Amino acid sequence: MVNEFQFLSSLKAEYALEMVGDDCAVLPKDETSDLLITADLLIEDIDFRIEWTSPNLIGHKALAVSLSDMAAMGGVPKWAMLSIGVPEGLWNSSFLDLFYAGWFQLANEFGVELIGGDISRSPDKLVIDSIVGGEVARRTAILRSGAKAGELIAVTGALGGAAAGLRLLERQDVGERSKEWHQSLTTKQLEPQPQIAAGKLLHNTGLATSMIDVSDGLLSDLEHLCRQSGVGALIDAKHVPFVPDMGRAGMTSDQKFDLALNGGEDFELLFTFDPDRISDLDRSFFTVIGETTSNTGIIELIRDGTTHLVEPKGFRHF
Amino acid sequence: MVNEFQFLSSLKAEYALEMVGDDCAVLPKDETSDLLITADLLIEDIDFRIEWTSPNLIGHKALAVSLSDMAAMGGVPKWAMLSIGVPEGLWNSSFLDLFYAGWFQLANEFGVELIGGDISRSPDKLVIDSIVGGEVARRTAILRSGAKAGELIAVTGALGGAAAGLRLLERQDVGERSKEWHQSLTTKQLEPQPQIAAGKLLHNTGLATSMIDVSDGLLSDLEHLCRQSGVGALIDAKHVPFVPDMGRAGMTSDQKFDLALNGGEDFELLFTFDPDRISDLDRSFFTVIGETTSNTGIIELIRDGTTHLVEPKGFRHF
Repeated sequence: MVNEFQFLSSLKAEYALEMVGDDCAVLPKDETSDLLITADLLIEDIDFRIEWTSPNLIGHKALAVSLSDMAAMGGVPKWAMLSIGVPEGLWNSSFLDLFYAGWFQLANEFGVELIGGDISRSPDKLVIDSIVGGEVARRTAILRSGAKAGELIAVTGALGGAAAGLRLLERQDVGERSKEWHQSLTTKQLEPQPQIAAGKLLHNTGLATSMIDVSDGLLSDLEHLCRQSGVGALIDAKHVPFVPDMGRAGMTSDQKFDLALNGGEDFELLFTFDPDRISDLDRSFFTVIGETTSNTGIIELIRDGTTHLVEPKGFRHF
Repeated sequence: MVNEFQFLSSLKAEYALEMVGDDCAVLPKDETSDLLITADLLIEDIDFRIEWTSPNLIGHKALAVSLSDMAAMGGVPKWAMLSIGVPEGLWNSSFLDLFYAGWFQLANEFGVELIGGDISRSPDKLVIDSIVGGEVARRTAILRSGAKAGELIAVTGALGGAAAGLRLLERQDVGERSKEWHQSLTTKQLEPQPQIAAGKLLHNTGLATSMIDVSDGLLSDLEHLCRQSGVGALIDAKHVPFVPDMGRAGMTSDQKFDLALNGGEDFELLFTFDPDRISDLDRSFFTVIGETTSNTGIIELIRDGTTHLVEPKGFRHF
């Protein structure tokens, strides 16, 4: 059975879809700027559970995941559309008012204007398609395909928190809920912060040669970037930044590794840059975790002194 | 209980959403053109039934409804995005291949390029969000709000066929299926043709002062247009063009009236124009059905010599 990445790849080949496959589509806008557009579909019980979150946080996350795609191109978000399919039970409640309140709170933070969309009835599950448009100076969008062999690989922030938060929500341990680490990790899952400022900085300094957001999982997203750049990667596991609260939640070293490398939904930025520019990198925001290699499509991981070939296990729908 | 039009209206007021509410959102693009964008959400068992249609036709219709929005602004479609939520059973079949084949057949007809989107798993229902972008010369998009009192109201094509086709599909009379009128009417429902050429003509001649596509139903869409233009309308029922096959399907005069006035999904164009320009209107493509009045928001219908106040009964999700 093909997964969705393989399906998209064959669709691109069959219909010669040159513009499909980055975090945002890039279209020429005017003399000085390009238009960036992204769409993210969130479906109840696949991408979120209503009983584990709140209407406000669903609104926040729907916009945040698309803003993260904008960040990953170095773009500035400008406008958005929302298509929503609403089950009848939610329609007759305060759900939508709270959903939009959460959505607009984040939208206002980034000056994003709602310009349209669609509202439909849905038989049973809440469905949200979040579309965001933005801008970037002409031909300067940071693509997944820009990495060269011999560059350094870095990430913003720390990884694994969102996936750890999901595990906590799944195990529903009432006694844990009041702990500070429980709230911190579940917040990483339910209220992700798009790295717009970091994306802009990496764009404006011309530092990042390629970039992607960590949505499926570090290794899985690294594989996308490497395949589209035609390079390989060597990652040093001991340099991968963990969210510290995972330790406080009693996770073992192996669990922390697995969540940080394969967990997904951290919405941090993964990027490559020229080693000559390492002094330009603010090490308080960014962590170097490895380097690109000429072994096209091969991801290698150094752990405990041994180098392993990696089979990414990040999030796949199919 | 509020319906979705009332909900959108209160949302627009609460968050001062100036750009929401036409067939497409209009954004400045460059010195000479504006960008038009529309999104349409189609959900299985609400907007279509898989057992009544084919994967190719679902692909066709998903794009057609958005192209119709583009037509209603007088715009030229350029690109599209597709967000699709797929139940596991459909994933492991030829469904998506056929869906995209139907989609691309229509896309190629209008030179529309697929530039992105999202693929997700869905718990049980197929979900499609169709996004189309296009262009129009700067500040020339034909809005719903441009009508003035004392103008004529016209439609393209004939009405009621799509709704009549839906009734035939619902009653599942096997004996009817081979009849020519059955195929013609169900095709109106399952394979609607977006009126891009008519929309362009009405735009390029500067004829239409306001326009909307007939998606919810003639009277319902006329109400949207009148409210946004601050006018009323007087429609002469005997001038409303019926799809002739409704008669062959054995529908009574009352049924035909009801389907043509309230049925929806015909995706014809409804527009207003200056009576001084009536000689510019090609009467083989367009039918004058009434006039705008100064009775803001009031729709009147002349039928059998009597004038009735109209309560639109078009399609509403809630």
